[in-house]
Amino acid sequence: MTRLPDPQDPLFVRLNSSLRFDRRLWPQDIAGSKAHLGALRKLEVIDDDELRTLDEGLDAVAAELEAGRFDFQGSDEDIHMAVERRLTELIGPLGGTLHTARSRNDQVATDLALYLRERATQARRLIVALMGRLLELAQAHRDWRMPGYTHLQRAQPVYLGHHLLAYFWMLERDEIRFAAAAGSTMAMPLGSGALAGLNWDVDREATAAELGFARPSPNSIDTVSNRDFALDYLHAAAVCAMHLSRLGSELVIWSSDEFGFCEPADAFASGSSIMPQKKNPDAAELLRAKAPRVTASLTRLLGVLHALPLAYAKDLQEDKEAVFDAVDTIELSLEAADAMLGGLRFNRERRDGGRD
Amino acid sequence: MTRLPDPQDPLFVRLNSSLRFDRRLWPQDIAGSKAHLGALRKLEVIDDDELRTLDEGLDAVAAELEAGRFDFQGSDEDIHMAVERRLTELIGPLGGTLHTARSRNDQVATDLALYLRERATQARRLIVALMGRLLELAQAHRDWRMPGYTHLQRAQPVYLGHHLLAYFWMLERDEIRFAAAAGSTMAMPLGSGALAGLNWDVDREATAAELGFARPSPNSIDTVSNRDFALDYLHAAAVCAMHLSRLGSELVIWSSDEFGFCEPADAFASGSSIMPQKKNPDAAELLRAKAPRVTASLTRLLGVLHALPLAYAKDLQEDKEAVFDAVDTIELSLEAADAMLGGLRFNRERRDGGRD
Amino acid sequence: MTRLPDPQDPLFVRLNSSLRFDRRLWPQDIAGSKAHLGALRKLEVIDDDELRTLDEGLDAVAAELEAGRFDFQGSDEDIHMAVERRLTELIGPLGGTLHTARSRNDQVATDLALYLRERATQARRLIVALMGRLLELAQAHRDWRMPGYTHLQRAQPVYLGHHLLAYFWMLERDEIRFAAAAGSTMAMPLGSGALAGLNWDVDREATAAELGFARPSPNSIDTVSNRDFALDYLHAAAVCAMHLSRLGSELVIWSSDEFGFCEPADAFASGSSIMPQKKNPDAAELLRAKAPRVTASLTRLLGVLHALPLAYAKDLQEDKEAVFDAVDTIELSLEAADAMLGGLRFNRERRDGGRD
Amino acid sequence: MTRLPDPQDPLFVRLNSSLRFDRRLWPQDIAGSKAHLGALRKLEVIDDDELRTLDEGLDAVAAELEAGRFDFQGSDEDIHMAVERRLTELIGPLGGTLHTARSRNDQVATDLALYLRERATQARRLIVALMGRLLELAQAHRDWRMPGYTHLQRAQPVYLGHHLLAYFWMLERDEIRFAAAAGSTMAMPLGSGALAGLNWDVDREATAAELGFARPSPNSIDTVSNRDFALDYLHAAAVCAMHLSRLGSELVIWSSDEFGFCEPADAFASGSSIMPQKKNPDAAELLRAKAPRVTASLTRLLGVLHALPLAYAKDLQEDKEAVFDAVDTIELSLEAADAMLGGLRFNRERRDGGRD
Repeated sequence: MTRLPDPQDPLFVRLNSSLRFDRRLWPQDIAGSKAHLGALRKLEVIDDDELRTLDEGLDAVAAELEAGRFDFQGSDEDIHMAVERRLTELIGPLGGTLHTARSRNDQVATDLALYLRERATQARRLIVALMGRLLELAQAHRDWRMPGYTHLQRAQPVYLGHHLLAYFWMLERDEIRFAAAAGSTMAMPLGSGALAGLNWDVDREATAAELGFARPSPNSIDTVSNRDFALDYLHAAAVCAMHLSRLGSELVIWSSDEFGFCEPADAFASGSSIMPQKKNPDAAELLRAKAPRVTASLTRLLGVLHALPLAYAKDLQEDKEAVFDAVDTIELSLEAADAMLGGLRFNRERRDGGRD
Repeated sequence: MTRLPDPQDPLFVRLNSSLRFDRRLWPQDIAGSKAHLGALRKLEVIDDDELRTLDEGLDAVAAELEAGRFDFQGSDEDIHMAVERRLTELIGPLGGTLHTARSRNDQVATDLALYLRERATQARRLIVALMGRLLELAQAHRDWRMPGYTHLQRAQPVYLGHHLLAYFWMLERDEIRFAAAAGSTMAMPLGSGALAGLNWDVDREATAAELGFARPSPNSIDTVSNRDFALDYLHAAAVCAMHLSRLGSELVIWSSDEFGFCEPADAFASGSSIMPQKKNPDAAELLRAKAPRVTASLTRLLGVLHALPLAYAKDLQEDKEAVFDAVDTIELSLEAADAMLGGLRFNRERRDGGRD
Repeated sequence: MTRLPDPQDPLFVRLNSSLRFDRRLWPQDIAGSKAHLGALRKLEVIDDDELRTLDEGLDAVAAELEAGRFDFQGSDEDIHMAVERRLTELIGPLGGTLHTARSRNDQVATDLALYLRERATQARRLIVALMGRLLELAQAHRDWRMPGYTHLQRAQPVYLGHHLLAYFWMLERDEIRFAAAAGSTMAMPLGSGALAGLNWDVDREATAAELGFARPSPNSIDTVSNRDFALDYLHAAAVCAMHLSRLGSELVIWSSDEFGFCEPADAFASGSSIMPQKKNPDAAELLRAKAPRVTASLTRLLGVLHALPLAYAKDLQEDKEAVFDAVDTIELSLEAADAMLGGLRFNRERRDGGRD
Repeated sequence: MTRLPDPQDPLFVRLNSSLRFDRRLWPQDIAGSKAHLGALRKLEVIDDDELRTLDEGLDAVAAELEAGRFDFQGSDEDIHMAVERRLTELIGPLGGTLHTARSRNDQVATDLALYLRERATQARRLIVALMGRLLELAQAHRDWRMPGYTHLQRAQPVYLGHHLLAYFWMLERDEIRFAAAAGSTMAMPLGSGALAGLNWDVDREATAAELGFARPSPNSIDTVSNRDFALDYLHAAAVCAMHLSRLGSELVIWSSDEFGFCEPADAFASGSSIMPQKKNPDAAELLRAKAPRVTASLTRLLGVLHALPLAYAKDLQEDKEAVFDAVDTIELSLEAADAMLGGLRFNRERRDGGRD
């Protein structure tokens, strides 16, 4: 998105700039650029010395970003522009060579695919940890009798371990769903250009391999218009958040005076100055409340893509905030659920008692 | 859901009855019951004669349903009750044996899983057919030059075949997504009972094998509360409908006087009595307009499940209308897209012309 | 939407036909046509005799529809076409005069506006009835002590009457919201033609007055593209359904063995054959479960309208099923909530007891 | 939400803290506290000197916040706690008196109501400005002929002024909707306490009048659970954003080479380094793309409130980010639309030409 002769209107700058949120893609942007250098070398666009200069330049930029020393400027519309601007400051006009055989359109799709593959993997890790916690709790309470409910009415007696494992199996499906979402990111966008592919005979297989993609994407027009891999991540996150909302909801009910099945740790609860007897299960409530937020991210991106003509359109820039909010929400929720369950105290008597 | 002593209020009957929509599950309900007979035989709940009587009774009920001769009654709350009521009319009290070692809660989950596995397979078939159509069209127009667009601005020249294949690859991903949705249905709910499993030592592996499931579901509390397989189908359908909305949107734009790239067949268009020159691309518009409907089915079910305590709750009955509407919408859209593309006429001159 | 020379493809017919759902607009369609006759008379398009013939013809069509004797035909794409086809059968080619100075585009918008004004009024009636029920219950239980909750933890003692009146005030806001939605329907679309207004000098004020509109709509291009009044109805319905979901959710919790605050009437509950002690609050659960469905109707229509170019587009046909489902759902929910509350029995001891 | 004996878990702190987003409510929080001082004086909880000290203390805190000099601390969970903590640092234990006859639950509802009343008013201002812009443009192009479209097919000739005014009238309805949303904020929550009202005989009418509310809210349990006023704002914003998406969509189509009806100013467009002929209507695309985001905020809050038991629950904290994102999005969109239209150049020839 080169600048036109006239300056941008300040309102357009505010509407248009994505730097405040897409800066988190810097590691993927740097990695993609470093892999691209190999392609440029093979094309003999750059020689070995230039490759080394560019590579070291990118390392220097990465080091500044890593250390929080990077000086973002008002004219940096997005992270791609910021990295290239800084690279050119550091190593001179050679920095502009990165443009060759690459467009912002395939670059941003590549960055987001790399990012979501990592986040899907991280979600799987957090899910496995939470499954482990549930297994441990289920084991410890495997013979604690409790009422099993349908319609929130006591139906048949079950064991607490049995009930807790219901969440284990929901999470196992979530893990599979995130694995599928990671799989959706495996076709490399780079090489699609702005929409029509490249006039350069680049070795896309080599770049794909270097970046951990399974293959180059097959159709350039589709590639720069495609955000399916983000939708798949958001679906996995929405279903997982819904599962956690059911867990949160049950813990809120179980923590009530009337049920009295469990009590949250102080570290995950709040009290009340005017009602000192109270211990509110705030963390469980927040877990319950997060699901509609993740669902909203999913429908938001589906809404942006609805009826959108091919190929790249600026509308696609609306993908990132939806994705980032979902990533942050689901990762924090999974971690917090794990820790909260660790501090939960179940109450043996209350669960056996009641009217049954 | 047995009746209580007092009669149901007519308003509750209207709120509660699902027969008007769940009757389409009868083939799955009959199949599930027939498979359940084998389990009852092994348990020696029924002998060989009784098994034969029940089996033939179910065939007779199925024949009536198939032929549209089945006499639904006001007291039939749902398809499960209707089938059992009719079976008992036909073969006497023995019909009630089907209750043994089964609950409405695992039965309805089984029916829906079987149904969605079939619909996912059908969606895959329709997708493959539409992919074939696109391949054929792309082949026929592989060297027709047209402007490639970004931001709906002419960017770089491409071939019409290249552009059409963008949709081929979207659909390929849809096919994979529906395959995953089918995979989500492979754990058999039967045997979970109302929520706590069964006191009978049923051979779930055998029943699962007979019904085409890969395995029995591992946790009964999770199983009767779980609708993940429906969410996975709805996600696949929502993304697919979004792809078709982009196709519809492009065909509407391409059919405008200004673009003039193509013209719909009369059979997929409407005219105007007061504006005889007009030919409206109604089918393309409707294709475009369906995506938010399918997305709404997905968010509706995610909303129902949000914060819902385990195990079975009546809220889950809200799953079916959302699912059925999505099934009907996506299947009709895929078929109509295929036929509409078959009648589309591309205009060679207009695509090459213009200001470029 | 006149037919083009070639016959419509059967798949297009299925995708396109709206008769199966828009037939419920017949009273509004007849009323709009009858009012239109006056305009045609003033324009001297018809004379007094013709006006009488047309008016009586419309009455005859209405009588057939009212009595369920109307013979819908496969070629009737929508209710407007069906009415006109039948009118012409009954009174001859004169029936076609109704076309003059009217388009399907302003006709359908008028029908839907009339319909939603009536349904908004009906929703207000049902809300007022439910408010009356709550007032009566609150009066009867005004001094019944119960725990007041925050975070579902017992916080401060309140009276049951106080708690029940919380719903009274939610509903008062709903009533205001539906009144605003009715207000949104007060600009009459008729006279906007297909999009560009009419070449006839019709007396729109007179027609508006006859149909109960406050004024003719000011801009024809906006008018045929506008569905804001439907969105306002859907918002009112979605918020009201959310309020009812909170009531349903509380009644489910209060009906649990652990809370034991109330017990639903048999007429609004279900039992269990294998668990005879159970009484499930099905009606309360269904009330809880309906809100996401109404929200989905709202987002579905917002999604259809997103990015839609002016003026009329076929996509707008997707408005009606979303609206009708929301109308049916909210009206039934309000009625059922009223009746269910009428049968509810509160339990004095349980509410005072507990750990407090 | 007082702290319990044990320290909060860092993960709970991250999940729970709302300070990073709710700090924008500081002006409303200060205003609410200053009005509360009057109530405390009447109750003789404080004397004239104390009132003056507290009032000046709040002014000092406000001055620090205004100037960006306020030192937020890690232990400040939310803006209410931050203000009170700082006040107590400045004026000593007297600062704690603000707690008297007030709860966090009625305080936060009051702050949000005050905030949304201001934002609704600001939205109305921006809408009126944009309406003025459209009126001016319509006036300047009142006799410029252009094709009127249905189904994106040329239907009947209209004037550009007529078409532009379609948006004027959409915005007029938006203005009414935001006025209704402002009206929804007119019942003052303060005085509802945590949920059960107060044991103090406070003069709520006086405080309401001072803060610009029309009346005190009638039911304390409803009040601390109620976010209808936020839903009404979000509905107004979602419909308005949808209108702007239609404007954006039309400008994108009109800016295409094929339509050529208009050209965006450089200040609201982007170019391309490899395709120097291009001028992309980025601002129009972003305007189009924002609507699903605002709809998502609406459905997110409806989702949080779904099935939520009364009275206050921590889930309600999820209201603010949804609201703030919608406020920022709609205000920026309205401003940017106004400025973008100011720079738009319509092309007289192209609109008259074409195949007609």
